[in-house]
Parts: sequence; structure tokens; C-alpha cells
Amino acid sequence: MAEINYKMKIKPTLLQKDKVSYASDHIDLPENGVDCSEGCNPYGFPAVVYDVVKNFDVSRMGPYPHSTAFFDAIHDQWEDVVDIEKENILYADGSINAIYSINNIFDAHGSRVLGISPQFADYYENAQMQGITYDPVVLKKENNFKFNVQDFLDRIDDSYNYVYLDNPNNPTGQNVPLEDIEKIVEKAAEFGIIVIVDEAYGEFMDKKDSAVNIFKKHLNLIVIKTMSKGFGLAGMRMGYIISNKDFIRYMNKMNNPYNISELGREIAGAALRDGGEIEMHKAAFARMKEEINKVVGKNLHVAENLPTCSLILLYADDENVDIKEELFKRGALVISGECFQSLDKSSARIRLPKEDEFPKLLEAIADLEKSLDK
Amino acid sequence: MAEINYKMKIKPTLLQKDKVSYASDHIDLPENGVDCSEGCNPYGFPAVVYDVVKNFDVSRMGPYPHSTAFFDAIHDQWEDVVDIEKENILYADGSINAIYSINNIFDAHGSRVLGISPQFADYYENAQMQGITYDPVVLKKENNFKFNVQDFLDRIDDSYNYVYLDNPNNPTGQNVPLEDIEKIVEKAAEFGIIVIVDEAYGEFMDKKDSAVNIFKKHLNLIVIKTMSKGFGLAGMRMGYIISNKDFIRYMNKMNNPYNISELGREIAGAALRDGGEIEMHKAAFARMKEEINKVVGKNLHVAENLPTCSLILLYADDENVDIKEELFKRGALVISGECFQSLDKSSARIRLPKEDEFPKLLEAIADLEKSLDK
Repeated sequence: MAEINYKMKIKPTLLQKDKVSYASDHIDLPENGVDCSEGCNPYGFPAVVYDVVKNFDVSRMGPYPHSTAFFDAIHDQWEDVVDIEKENILYADGSINAIYSINNIFDAHGSRVLGISPQFADYYENAQMQGITYDPVVLKKENNFKFNVQDFLDRIDDSYNYVYLDNPNNPTGQNVPLEDIEKIVEKAAEFGIIVIVDEAYGEFMDKKDSAVNIFKKHLNLIVIKTMSKGFGLAGMRMGYIISNKDFIRYMNKMNNPYNISELGREIAGAALRDGGEIEMHKAAFARMKEEINKVVGKNLHVAENLPTCSLILLYADDENVDIKEELFKRGALVISGECFQSLDKSSARIRLPKEDEFPKLLEAIADLEKSLDK
Repeated sequence: MAEINYKMKIKPTLLQKDKVSYASDHIDLPENGVDCSEGCNPYGFPAVVYDVVKNFDVSRMGPYPHSTAFFDAIHDQWEDVVDIEKENILYADGSINAIYSINNIFDAHGSRVLGISPQFADYYENAQMQGITYDPVVLKKENNFKFNVQDFLDRIDDSYNYVYLDNPNNPTGQNVPLEDIEKIVEKAAEFGIIVIVDEAYGEFMDKKDSAVNIFKKHLNLIVIKTMSKGFGLAGMRMGYIISNKDFIRYMNKMNNPYNISELGREIAGAALRDGGEIEMHKAAFARMKEEINKVVGKNLHVAENLPTCSLILLYADDENVDIKEELFKRGALVISGECFQSLDKSSARIRLPKEDEFPKLLEAIADLEKSLDK
């Protein structure tokens, strides 16, 4: 096979490189344990979704999807700030596929992208598989993994073709204020660099910090959104891209108009309009983070983060501690730092559970912190 | 913008080339007219889908999709012929996205693909956008657009990297028998060429003609399937690829394990197991084609086709006749030949309607045939 493949001009990176990703079609939860691994909203989706499904005319699953319910809701959600037109939107089967669509419009040969590390692994894995060089500004343990906008600005130069930033950051859960995003976009524009802001976890920060607010001011800006995280609808695969009409037109040339099913469009539209109880979830995450902060600080630490975001990065001073393994033994399933470039097993991403399952996680963390005293 | 884009190494083809496709998010039906445009099954999907939706636990839309119902049904459907393993399958958001996933594993620079013309426009449009050269064997009007396997075999040589064939063919609705497909796969293998067989309309031919029967015998074979056509579920976006584990592994490196929603997997699994009434639909299409054959033959002709397939290509001797426009005036919406390479407005793809709507179409065709006598 190997010989045939080579001859077939399969991308050389696909033959040479293994993909590192925590995304999996299988979950192994510890017995009676608490799942803090996948990035979905533990509180689930807005209740209005039940009504939409119940009232949906199932016969609409037959013809190709043509519903505009999702677009209409996106438009109306931003109407007071910015006029989003149909030609500014591209649907995607989740924000991961939005990333693929964006990477796909670039000519990979010789392209270089500036990012940070750690951030969403599937982004740079796909970029690298395409043959794109990913060059991250590393967030350092000694700075509590805090993003520094000046460090990032200093790295922007003519050698890059585009910038990728997730905001809030996955895995730390910290966010970059919009004024800093705008500084990056403006400096990037000087060099003709496109900036991709992935707001997969964007519903867990203030709407005023979304780059959607400024996408019409800056022609070099592409924003990724999804219904999987804040809106808790990961199982329905509904993401979208907001950008200027030119970029969307280019992406459409390598896409089809049928992304997101007819039912999905109705569900997404209704959920977006309803808004759900995200403010309550954000408050709950902030309360849980306060509790965690009380039980760590000696051997374990929580990286810089936005209190209202569902994610934290927990890390140990001792590099030999396998956080994922230790928490697994104590009944909590989390994502190992090993799944992110520049991190190792001595850190782990924790997606907070619902408050009623939280004591299990808190106890696991507290117990691990104590056990490291020996 | 143009200057920024160029600098940004956007694929040159995206800047230079317009996409030609009949896929659209909008349909303009003539008043009281009959829709014969989109490729979905006019009879809709198996009734079991209503039960699946009714009984689906909506809360499963929250977490990422992990259901194996679809894979299990695919496996069981072929169990008597071939052992399909999980690692032989890649899900896609419809067969169009399956095509994108396949094209994406090839290194586009310098790649050449051998196909036929006419066939599914979105395939070669995407290949060309990627920078791949598409070189079709043209099916000729004087041969009634009949595919000739020897002509095709004669064209296979070392200059090609892969072959793309849809079977049954879109737009003509003719099919290539499996023994001819196998001849192509075998000759291609001599040159290390991969053969992609797109069976989007595959449920309208005999199961024994599916390339799935032989995919384990030939390492250079990739088969595309979908639930959109025969199973009438275009609105749910559910396609898949069957191939050897190596190719699927490469594709997975540029994909995520979450394609197709949790509900979609349950629906597709149940529909596939149930099988629906496809045999009745096939018989109905054959009856309608017989009726059409009775009213054409002088100025209008039906291209080579498989009676049980939902598609026909209608063409006029006179190249100045705009078939789509003429049928539109007479109340039938069809796809113009202009949407397919090597065809023009004097032909059109007609996707047959349900039999109760068929008289409208038949009358439109008969009336056009008569009007051309003048």
C-alpha cells in the first residue's frame, strides 16, 4: 500500500505524521465517575429545543435543507450592533469543520500561521496535515499560562500568512479582551495577514468581547462560532463562520449550500433566539472555580482563566505528576495536557460539570493536592 | 481586497475560477408546477423514520455524537457479502462532503484525475478548485451518451493519479455493471491509480452492481454512499465512504469523529435496516420512463439510462432549444445541461416526480416534442 499511496500524491504529511487530538468517538468514564472531558455544556441546551423537535414536520427531512431559521436568528441577535447579511455566513457541521473550510481556502505550500500554545489541538493538527507551518507563541507555566498581547504583537511580521486564536482559549479558559483582539487585527492588516478568531467557547464571555462586533470594520477578520458549547448542542453539529463576503464566497466555492440539516437549522435558530440559561451556567462555573481555588495553590495550580468559562487548566509544579491519571483514579475524567502542543501530563484540561456533580471533582482535586505533599 | 487575498496565498483557482453547480439553497418552482430538479427521492424516506424521531431521547443532542447505530446497520446490510469493519467507514455530512474529504487527502499540485463527462458537477468543480486537473472522457450525443468501458480503459495511463466515476451516472441515470467497474479498477491498479466510485444514486441499481461487493479485493478502491437519494433523507445530511483502512485513516487525519449528528445516526441506521419501499419506487420510475419514451423520439431523446433510476437526461436534436426554459414554461422545473461540463442548454436532467405528479411532466415533454415539429 505505501508505494501506491506515495505514487498517488497523497499529501506527504498524511503519510508521515500522526494526528494528536482528544476528540474521540468513545469515552471511558471511571466507575461512578464524573465526566469533565468533552467540551460540551454540562447543563445541556435551551429547553425550547424540545418543543422544536416535537413540532417539527418530519417530512422536511426529505428534500435538501433550505430553512433560513438559523441565519435569521444570527442576523437578529446582532442587529443592534452590526448588519450581518446572508453572504457573510457559511454554515459548518460543527466548528471543527468550520476550521477545515477555512484552512482549505489557503494555498498550503509555504503558508505560515502564527498562533499560541496551548490552544485547540484540532486546529493546528489540520493546518499541519495540509502542509501549513504552525508557529505558536508559547504561554509559559511561570506566567501562569497568561496570554500577553504585547508578546503576540511583537511576533507578527511579514513571514506569516495568517493568525489563529481561540477566544476564550481552549484549554485554559482565559479570554482576550476585544481591544487586544483589535490591536492584533490592525497590526496583522499592515502585513496583509488574515486573523481567524475561533469563538467556540465565546458564549461564556461577554458578548461585547466577541470579534463579531468588529468584523465589518476589518477586512482581514474571520470569526468562528458554534452551537456546541454555550448552547449545549454538540450532538447536532452546528457551527458557522462570519466574515466578509469575499472570504465567504471563496469558501463557498469549496463547499455546498446544504451544510446543517433542515431540523438542525430550526433547532439552532430557536436556541439562539431563546438564549437559554447561559447566564446561570456562567455564574455556576464562577462559583465552582472559587471552590477549586480554595483547595489548590500549594502543589497544584489553576492557569489564568475567565471565571465564567466552563474550562480550566490544572497543573502541578512537579512535572512527573500525571494529572489525568491521578484524577481518573479519583473518579474524574479529564483531558491530559499531552493532547496539547507545549503541555505535558503534569497538566490537564477540566471542563466543569454541573454543580450537583461538582463535589466529586472538587474532592478529587483536593485529595490530589494533599497527596502531593508527601 | 484582491491584493490582500493574493498575498494571503489563497488558492489561485479560488480567485480565478467561478463554481458551476446546480446545488442551490433556493428553488424557484413554476406556479402549480412540478419539481424535477433536486436529486432527492420524490417518494421520501422510509416511514420508520417517523418512529425514530418520535422515540428519540432529545437530551442526546447535548453531548458529542457517539451512536454506532448507523455503522451497525451498514455492517449488517453487507454481512452476507463482505465484512465491513468500523475502520473501513468515514461518515460525511452528505456525499458532497464525502467528495471533499477524499479530494483533500491528495496533494493537488500536479495531480490529474480521469473521469467522464457529463457527471456530477460538484465533484470536478471541487477537484479543480483544489488545483487538480480533471480530464474527462466525453460521452457523445451521437452515441446517445452511452458509456463505453473500452473507450474508458484505453484512456487509463500513468499520467493519472486517480479516477472518479459516479454510478449510476448523474445526469443520465445509466449504470456501469460491476464487471466493467472491476476492469477499470484492475487496469488502474497497474498504474497505482485510485478509483473513486460515487454511488450516490446506487440504491436505484441492483445491490450486486455496487462496488462495495469488491472493495476488500482491491486496495485502490474508494466507494461513496449516501442516504440522500434512494433513502430520501437529503435534508438530514448523511453520507459515508467505504474503503480500505489506510485511506480511511488518512482521511480521518483531516476529519473529526463527530460527523453526522446523534439523531442522524439513529435515523440513518433505522432507515438502512428497514430498507423502505425502494423496490416500489424503482418500479414506478421504470413505468414513467416507458411513458416518456412513448412521447419522444422525433426531436427529443432520452439518453442511455437504467430504467429503475430516478434520473433521465432529455436532449434535443436542435442545439438552439433551451430544454430547461421550455419545460419551465410548461410547468416543470429541471436542471439545465449547462450545469454539466460538455452539455449545453439543449439537454436537461430530469429527476422523475411521484407518479401522481407525473402527468404534468409527461404533458410538458410531449407538448415540447410536438412544438418542435414546426
